[in-house]
Amino acid sequence: MTAPAAATLPAGLVTYEDVARAAERLAGAAHHTPVLVSRMANERTGASLFFKAENFQRTGAFKFRGAYNAISALAPEQRARGVVTYSSGNHGQALACAGALLGAPVTVVMPHDAPAIKVAATRGYGADIVVYDRFRDDREEIGRRLAQERGLALVPPYDHDDVIAGQGTAGKELFEEAGPLDRLYVCLGGGGLLSGCALSAKALSPGCEVIGVEPEAGDDGRQSLRKGEIVRIPVPQTIADGAMTAFLGERTFPIIRRDVADIETVSDAALVEAMRFFAERMKVVVEPTGCLAAAASFAAGDAIAGRRVGVILSGGNIDLQRFAALVADA
Amino acid sequence: MTAPAAATLPAGLVTYEDVARAAERLAGAAHHTPVLVSRMANERTGASLFFKAENFQRTGAFKFRGAYNAISALAPEQRARGVVTYSSGNHGQALACAGALLGAPVTVVMPHDAPAIKVAATRGYGADIVVYDRFRDDREEIGRRLAQERGLALVPPYDHDDVIAGQGTAGKELFEEAGPLDRLYVCLGGGGLLSGCALSAKALSPGCEVIGVEPEAGDDGRQSLRKGEIVRIPVPQTIADGAMTAFLGERTFPIIRRDVADIETVSDAALVEAMRFFAERMKVVVEPTGCLAAAASFAAGDAIAGRRVGVILSGGNIDLQRFAALVADA
Repeated sequence: MTAPAAATLPAGLVTYEDVARAAERLAGAAHHTPVLVSRMANERTGASLFFKAENFQRTGAFKFRGAYNAISALAPEQRARGVVTYSSGNHGQALACAGALLGAPVTVVMPHDAPAIKVAATRGYGADIVVYDRFRDDREEIGRRLAQERGLALVPPYDHDDVIAGQGTAGKELFEEAGPLDRLYVCLGGGGLLSGCALSAKALSPGCEVIGVEPEAGDDGRQSLRKGEIVRIPVPQTIADGAMTAFLGERTFPIIRRDVADIETVSDAALVEAMRFFAERMKVVVEPTGCLAAAASFAAGDAIAGRRVGVILSGGNIDLQRFAALVADA
Repeated sequence: MTAPAAATLPAGLVTYEDVARAAERLAGAAHHTPVLVSRMANERTGASLFFKAENFQRTGAFKFRGAYNAISALAPEQRARGVVTYSSGNHGQALACAGALLGAPVTVVMPHDAPAIKVAATRGYGADIVVYDRFRDDREEIGRRLAQERGLALVPPYDHDDVIAGQGTAGKELFEEAGPLDRLYVCLGGGGLLSGCALSAKALSPGCEVIGVEPEAGDDGRQSLRKGEIVRIPVPQTIADGAMTAFLGERTFPIIRRDVADIETVSDAALVEAMRFFAERMKVVVEPTGCLAAAASFAAGDAIAGRRVGVILSGGNIDLQRFAALVADA
């Protein structure tokens, strides 16, 4: 649906070769997560659905791929000095875990009101936590300052070439296991997973239409794609806490613009319905953000009937009390 | 811990050859369920745990194996006349599904107060439901009468050689994928899964100690093993609704007595703790009965430290409201 001239693209974008190199680095460190199929989901949609279960990934989300690849790509001296990021969510934990495995000290900038369980999990991997005031401070500025002052490499959650390449390995594994697909649904926050998977689709299943999915509460990605430039919106309020991003990345957007067919949105209610389906019928726990792609596929109707469709389940990290409240409240 | 003379055993018990034949029948019909591993579970126990995920089996529990094998073993004329069973739980649904696949009419005798969702699921597979009064009627007598009057083959939930052989294929697959094990934990209600898996253990991993696990509320299995005869108890009250059995089977007990090393019990509280672990850490939904074996392994301590241990997760069928209430109530 969008086809900008190649000449307008920034030079040196991430390529599928970078994804393939990331896959080599990740071998033996990341889980080769299973591809789930469900007779019931197929009957419901009329399609053949292939769910890539990144909720079974290390640290509970695809984020481990990008984080591990980014630290692996550092020169030994830099790795020894360490890395820093800002993230209260899955990326922070993933980077902390990857750093512990690769011997790199990790600093994570987290808001003062981050859930205790997330702070504990991140610290549990040995990371150093720097607290900021969500209402007063700029987390990116703090991250950049720490990087400069302490000589740390900044590994942001999505707008980073090695992160994009790492996330693309989830798509690579899916195509290698399921074979060529007609369509691939991928959730969209800052665009790391979507851009990486789009590179894998283009290389391994050239006819595959890649669809990004973001929460209805904040369709900055769709607006950006239509407008041809990055659109900024207020932070969207949604239960998909991994997709509460206000804008796409400078490194992810050009790839999305070139290789993604369209961006769709789904409501929080549809996310809850998908969570229930996964727990009740497929016996797996998927977090709200992890249900974005699936919810879009469940609503696709004729667009996917009779077709082979990939769906990335991006993660399964959700507080059990919250999970229980969401699935019980039918 | 028990070693009766072979001479005291009834003739013609199920053998591993029966299990292997069942595996051939099940190929392509039952799911070859994955074996899950968890770094966290290994750290917690000091053992290498291999979880056979029968919660991903068709109809959500291992019961599909025995049901499908039992119908497959029938002569064509009998299959065309149909089968009958009494079960308000996983076996009833499994038999209904297997019958639909194999073209055998299925009648399921269910209590008048069975949950509407289970009645609907069983009927959804095209089964005929016969309702009985839980307080007045004898379900086994009704089943036998229907079998006689209508010429149906009775396929009880566990005390049946083809059912035992079918359930044993879960253990067979586990050993084939994980390799030899030092110990195998299997949940225990009437003993179909335990006896079948014990046959597979003896054939494929002769040194493996097989441990049955039943709810603390009703240790008739343990009593039976110690006494050397089937002990009957009042129906135990436990959240493990698949193990609310009052006595072992005539066909399962001799195998258990010969091939099972010991029987342990776990509390309902330990089952809830295990359910929480699976949902929170491993992102899978396991029903209370399905957690019996795992809960015993989590409590095993030194007995399994440094050892390779198999654990059967027998099923994942639980009403979502109930699941939410159990895991949220920390």
